Amino acid sequence: MKKYKRNQRIGALMKIFAEKPNFIFSYNYFSEIFNAAKSTISEDVAIVKELVSELDYGKIETISGAAGGAVFIPVMGMKERTDILDSLCEMFSHKNRILSGGFIYMTDIFNNPGVVTNIAKVISSEFSNKKIDCIITVETKGIPAAILTGQKLNVPVAVIRRNNKVTEGATVSINYVSGSSNNIQTMSLSKRSLRENSRVLIVDDFMKGGGTCKGMADMMREFNAEVVGTAVVIETKQPEKKLVDNYLSLLVLNGINEKEGIIDITPNSKLLK
Amino acid sequence: MKKYKRNQRIGALMKIFAEKPNFIFSYNYFSEIFNAAKSTISEDVAIVKELVSELDYGKIETISGAAGGAVFIPVMGMKERTDILDSLCEMFSHKNRILSGGFIYMTDIFNNPGVVTNIAKVISSEFSNKKIDCIITVETKGIPAAILTGQKLNVPVAVIRRNNKVTEGATVSINYVSGSSNNIQTMSLSKRSLRENSRVLIVDDFMKGGGTCKGMADMMREFNAEVVGTAVVIETKQPEKKLVDNYLSLLVLNGINEKEGIIDITPNSKLLK
Repeated sequence: MKKYKRNQRIGALMKIFAEKPNFIFSYNYFSEIFNAAKSTISEDVAIVKELVSELDYGKIETISGAAGGAVFIPVMGMKERTDILDSLCEMFSHKNRILSGGFIYMTDIFNNPGVVTNIAKVISSEFSNKKIDCIITVETKGIPAAILTGQKLNVPVAVIRRNNKVTEGATVSINYVSGSSNNIQTMSLSKRSLRENSRVLIVDDFMKGGGTCKGMADMMREFNAEVVGTAVVIETKQPEKKLVDNYLSLLVLNGINEKEGIIDITPNSKLLK
Repeated sequence: MKKYKRNQRIGALMKIFAEKPNFIFSYNYFSEIFNAAKSTISEDVAIVKELVSELDYGKIETISGAAGGAVFIPVMGMKERTDILDSLCEMFSHKNRILSGGFIYMTDIFNNPGVVTNIAKVISSEFSNKKIDCIITVETKGIPAAILTGQKLNVPVAVIRRNNKVTEGATVSINYVSGSSNNIQTMSLSKRSLRENSRVLIVDDFMKGGGTCKGMADMMREFNAEVVGTAVVIETKQPEKKLVDNYLSLLVLNGINEKEGIIDITPNSKLLK
């Protein structure tokens, strides 16, 4: 069987951790891959632990004992977070994005995996110590952010549908009032998609009145789930009073001047300190 | 400024490559991060190149010259691919998944980021040399596979909608015939979401008659885009003649025996050789 050099093992370990953050890998697993003694692996992990800390990537936690293992918990440094939020503002505020009626075209950004991976890094970094069991979102535009946050936190995602589909099996449906338009809408979630008593994080792309997030929170009560947090990529400054109280937005849309082609969007100041 | 040891740089390089495959990083970028000379970085990259090859992770390609850089192109080994396909079959064939009417509950799997990351690794590995510009999918269940494939291939995703939304700006809409049910349906894609003359990869969760993939291919003609490939997670064995000719499925659903609770699903044999 092949043997690997130390710096090869370090590189491979870092790849494995980076591709599956928040997942506990056993020393046995690494031993088999690298054909190396557990004591060797343990030294390798110690080196990786130090490098993760020195390069401000977050932390490696080790679990000792016979069932020992290690997990990479990414926690974003202030500089990286500020850079990501600034570059998001730049993207979203481009004047060509203004659509007639004062809407902003954002779909390409919310479907860009590279950009949304950065969004997911910011969100997951904020909630990595909250013992989340599942991410909740509602179709369609919030799905990429939810999936990539789930990837970072190593948890499943449950997608609430606007319609009831035959392929979802038994569903729970609720009616809710959209915060901004006062329309009554329906949302459905498959009963199989979420275990009772889960701790959930709600993720969505955009919050104006907060009606959709409130609807998702109401739906969670039907599953006896606890909403541990709510994260949205963009919130509008107006109305200041939303239908949900505790939520984290990455960016704040202060206003649009359609005539002059100005979109005023800034990072959420809470994330910059 | 901080200096880093070689094995720290190797670990960090591997993390950076793993988090953004198919992206060309310049040696300057690495030089700045590690506060090291380009010649040092060049030696580090050579070590990473060797380890990626020895551990069967794909390849590192280097671009020489003043604007030199390096890119990690993951290509999956046969063992890893076989393991992923086998474990997918095991998941999908669990008898509790049978819904009344002979449908199979799959939504939880298609929304599980860990599982879909593996699906995306298989798809992206097959198409990494095809110079894809954009991934195309249609809402809702195919979105996670499309986004995670886009993440691996480092390309954007365009999501075709079933309805026309005001936040999409100008859209192109087409009618198409669903292959299995013979219903006429509509799909719309924002004009801004795809550049003319793009090379696209169509990704979807499930193919029965192939009508949806055919519809997406028809839509691509309206954008003068070239369909370089079509990938679906599961195809049904029946009907054998689909409405599209060239496509890659990961798994084949041979049949369901509702009475005895058997779902017969196997890896696509083309992927096992």
